[in-house]
Amino acid sequence: MKKVILASTSTLYNGSYLDYLLPTLANHFVGVKTLLFIPYAQPSGISYEDYTSKVGEAFSRINITVKGIHEFENPIEAIKNAEAIFTGGGNTFLLISKLYENKLIEPLKEVIENGTPYLGTSAGSNIGGKTINNTNDMPIVLPPSFDALALINFNLNPHYLDPIDGSTHMGETRETRINEFHKINPISVLGLREGSWLEVYDKDVIIRGNLTARLFRANEFPVEMAPGENLNFLT
Amino acid sequence: MKKVILASTSTLYNGSYLDYLLPTLANHFVGVKTLLFIPYAQPSGISYEDYTSKVGEAFSRINITVKGIHEFENPIEAIKNAEAIFTGGGNTFLLISKLYENKLIEPLKEVIENGTPYLGTSAGSNIGGKTINNTNDMPIVLPPSFDALALINFNLNPHYLDPIDGSTHMGETRETRINEFHKINPISVLGLREGSWLEVYDKDVIIRGNLTARLFRANEFPVEMAPGENLNFLT
Repeated sequence: MKKVILASTSTLYNGSYLDYLLPTLANHFVGVKTLLFIPYAQPSGISYEDYTSKVGEAFSRINITVKGIHEFENPIEAIKNAEAIFTGGGNTFLLISKLYENKLIEPLKEVIENGTPYLGTSAGSNIGGKTINNTNDMPIVLPPSFDALALINFNLNPHYLDPIDGSTHMGETRETRINEFHKINPISVLGLREGSWLEVYDKDVIIRGNLTARLFRANEFPVEMAPGENLNFLT
Repeated sequence: MKKVILASTSTLYNGSYLDYLLPTLANHFVGVKTLLFIPYAQPSGISYEDYTSKVGEAFSRINITVKGIHEFENPIEAIKNAEAIFTGGGNTFLLISKLYENKLIEPLKEVIENGTPYLGTSAGSNIGGKTINNTNDMPIVLPPSFDALALINFNLNPHYLDPIDGSTHMGETRETRINEFHKINPISVLGLREGSWLEVYDKDVIIRGNLTARLFRANEFPVEMAPGENLNFLT
């Protein structure tokens, strides 16, 4: 029985780290005493230690202790023994490269599929999709593969941004980029705006938060999906 | 004697395709009758044929005929025999994947180093750097390597964007992303704003256009470089 939350962002504008999600997380991680944190995405190049203590501070407010995966001698065993797991945001390429390097993709997928509660934010959500092809991050390192955990049957584009009215910038919009992807790859992509998250319970994939999410499918017009809708029809 | 132009963008806001660059290109490609165009980056998924005719239309205004590399049976020979070469913008991952697939990286580098005049815009400029690690594009396909043509001793970030005052979006700024790169890779990165380009003549790398360009070096504060300045000190 899979139990997963994939959030667009860890932090809302004017909010503090994870605060908008804490009531949800208290329920999601009910009964959990210790959380295993994966800090590999290193936002702004922060150290594993500093990142883990920032996360520990947030989770202390719902009485959960946090341990970083780098504190364990054997990270595969750490995953297998974890009560619950959280992968934080940062650079998706760095994150997935380190997961491949430490041979953690398969163990991570296995424990989550078997019921270890999981939380991902931003880059940590990107790896919940089938592949990381729709990350916004800069490719600062080349991973051996873009294949990810496939906890859902589609890909995510976190921090989804609508085209900006009146922008004079000539770089591609997010929608243009996703359409380019769909010319060569049929995997559906969900644009998840900041403040939205997915709750995955076994086969059900429910949109949460106050905003709609934008669903892009190859050869179809994009559609807005409302909070509460179930994306379990995507195959 | 290398003779290269690497432009941030093909098109300025409210401008038409390549128009702001045409006076420069008339000089850069003086004496050239036929230009070889590489359409592999396929912006918005446009076909090679459509992309090539769009480029042909722009270059007809300076009396240059354009042929797409896809029109040749042997693309390596096409590069070796080209009078001049232009690689257009679109998706950098798609572009470099196709260059590797067709074994064109080495021949392309060789003819450009030996004097075949080259123009790159956006993705076509990204591949002029040492690696494509600093592209803004979505990784819609996994190339075998991020190593690029290294026509200059640093990397480019085209369509460079300054942090937007008052933005409520929590995704990383361009500067944050480049700083994350510098935590793991020492290659210098030039943020080239739309309307700026580099003129590379042998060892000289001159900033052109009306705007300054932002130079990021590992472990140093970023600096603004003025038009006319020479980046040949970067090693």
